[in-house]
Amino acid sequence: MAEGLDGVVATATRLSDVDGEAGRLTIAGYAVEDLAPYASFEEVAYLLLQGRLPEPSEHVRFMQDLAGRRALSRAALAVVHEAAAAKVPPMDALRMAVPILSLGREENPVDDAMTAIASFPTIVGTYWRVLNGRGPVPVRSDLPHAAHYLHQLFGAEPSADRARALETYLNTVCDHGLNASTFAARVIVSTRSDVISGVTGAVGALKGPLHGGAPGPVLDMLKDIKSADRAEAWVRNELKVGRRIMGFGHRVYKVRDPRAAVLSKAADELSSAALENRQLYDLARSVEQTALKVLDEVKPGRNLRTNVEFFTALVLQALGLEPKSFVATFACGRIAGWCAHVIEQHAEDHLIRPQSDYVGPRGLKLKGGSA
Amino acid sequence: MAEGLDGVVATATRLSDVDGEAGRLTIAGYAVEDLAPYASFEEVAYLLLQGRLPEPSEHVRFMQDLAGRRALSRAALAVVHEAAAAKVPPMDALRMAVPILSLGREENPVDDAMTAIASFPTIVGTYWRVLNGRGPVPVRSDLPHAAHYLHQLFGAEPSADRARALETYLNTVCDHGLNASTFAARVIVSTRSDVISGVTGAVGALKGPLHGGAPGPVLDMLKDIKSADRAEAWVRNELKVGRRIMGFGHRVYKVRDPRAAVLSKAADELSSAALENRQLYDLARSVEQTALKVLDEVKPGRNLRTNVEFFTALVLQALGLEPKSFVATFACGRIAGWCAHVIEQHAEDHLIRPQSDYVGPRGLKLKGGSA
Repeated sequence: MAEGLDGVVATATRLSDVDGEAGRLTIAGYAVEDLAPYASFEEVAYLLLQGRLPEPSEHVRFMQDLAGRRALSRAALAVVHEAAAAKVPPMDALRMAVPILSLGREENPVDDAMTAIASFPTIVGTYWRVLNGRGPVPVRSDLPHAAHYLHQLFGAEPSADRARALETYLNTVCDHGLNASTFAARVIVSTRSDVISGVTGAVGALKGPLHGGAPGPVLDMLKDIKSADRAEAWVRNELKVGRRIMGFGHRVYKVRDPRAAVLSKAADELSSAALENRQLYDLARSVEQTALKVLDEVKPGRNLRTNVEFFTALVLQALGLEPKSFVATFACGRIAGWCAHVIEQHAEDHLIRPQSDYVGPRGLKLKGGSA
Repeated sequence: MAEGLDGVVATATRLSDVDGEAGRLTIAGYAVEDLAPYASFEEVAYLLLQGRLPEPSEHVRFMQDLAGRRALSRAALAVVHEAAAAKVPPMDALRMAVPILSLGREENPVDDAMTAIASFPTIVGTYWRVLNGRGPVPVRSDLPHAAHYLHQLFGAEPSADRARALETYLNTVCDHGLNASTFAARVIVSTRSDVISGVTGAVGALKGPLHGGAPGPVLDMLKDIKSADRAEAWVRNELKVGRRIMGFGHRVYKVRDPRAAVLSKAADELSSAALENRQLYDLARSVEQTALKVLDEVKPGRNLRTNVEFFTALVLQALGLEPKSFVATFACGRIAGWCAHVIEQHAEDHLIRPQSDYVGPRGLKLKGGSA
């Protein structure tokens, strides 16, 4: 039995390649560090869905198409309000609202994908504002995707620097091989089910803490350490009592996660605007160096390197997002990859259906004539 | 690469065993033909969730527990009404309402499973009545599960024979190894996500036509054939023009699907009550014999045998259900298996995360400074 299907190749893909030994992430042909900080989110989504970057006019039409799909239906809005009123976690709100995105529309893979990509920021933004006692802001069609998400959250047009930082983040996490949520989406649509069903399943999978993408604890760690000179003792003590150091180590990457470099640079640039963020960033870089040194010493050969969560926490925190919204924000980027994988799987048109080993009893009989 | 993970063993399970060569289905120790026609649905659900049949007092408490969870929240009811008003397919209505089942409740695996099992018939019944212009009927806590589903659909208490026939059907389809929807649920909760997320994903997977569980076309075939003497020419012609004969052949079973025998008997018993159903059943048995003979002759060695859909169609039709509700009715039985698999997967606490082969381009560079 292949526990957890470790090492089993389940499908071929043209969407992304994770080379854990070399620390390389390729997104539809481009190294993540060459693409994420420079492309718009719309360009990256187009690249994933169409297999190439758009020409300028295609880029504009794609932006307009997405922008026209941002408003939620009355039924979806009502569910988001109910979810916020009941204070369900953000990922539950997303899981409740996303399956309603097909209401009143004909099923169509590319159409469904565009609607899902456009709607995620509206769902999360509306939920977040209502949860915090503020009214939702109307959608705007004159902002690019990343800027629109910040507008949905904060009710104000973001500066170019802030929009760029979020865009770089969303691009960085847009796809990552056959992770558990992407695989769940592909399994679902391998029955020829629709895009919204696949994406709904992916949201449910991403919700689980083993998926990763939970960078909140990195901030708790930095707040607890407080200053660089306390880092070494803090890290040594955590390891001594058997706890993991948040933001280090990855199931696949045995060297530094290439996304960490992209997001470190984005956090660095963004942190210049506020002294508090600059101090946190400098502390983080110092803690990173210390943690790597101590981890190599205490856990030799384990190759625990900085992962994507470490600098995600810094970027999103500097943007003013609260840790509770981090995973839902991750979903606003990963939705592009989910949709592209689902459409790729549709073309396979082959059920994903492994076997199980039965280890239970056999030959039991009911007592008497009935159970 | 293992296309579709064919033949790959992904997990161990104590829930069910499909022996395709011998034509045997074991449900937590019991042969399906020894269990499904005799046990209550509640006993089978208990068996799957707890690993053994309940003692009499446990059976009663389990029935009461389920019966107390049948009512939908205001938010879930509103979504079911919206879905019916927009005339979305039944499986879409289920996918929209199920994720809302967690609203206002603390997350708890067994609790969530009980609520999901209890709520599926209410969701499908309410949707079906509103879709057809009738008001929903209030839930009742004084009916067993199968009888309550018929009450939700038809607004009247069913006869013991009708309730037994549906109960036998729900028991027969309660679990079936690692089918695509069950596997989707396990992948989702392998991240430690919750039961409702897993079950929501399973509904999305079951929706797809490759999943099976679409017995409607069997009735179309029988209506088209009309009388036994026309069967042979009809079947030969279908095969000649390259079409499949509905209700025959299965990915796993190379002999007669053991569930076909259970449901054939249930359909036979139920059909005694109405001449029209009796005639359809007799026609079906005759068509079955003819089709098996012709299939063996025209497709030698393919071992296309009667599958579960063939007699599912007859049971559900004799109960007065419309083909459009067949897959959602299937879900009202399979939900027990989904929940049990999800809870079994939670105990594994191991991510299901296979690999993909990257077959796209590499080393592409953006033109100029930006994309």
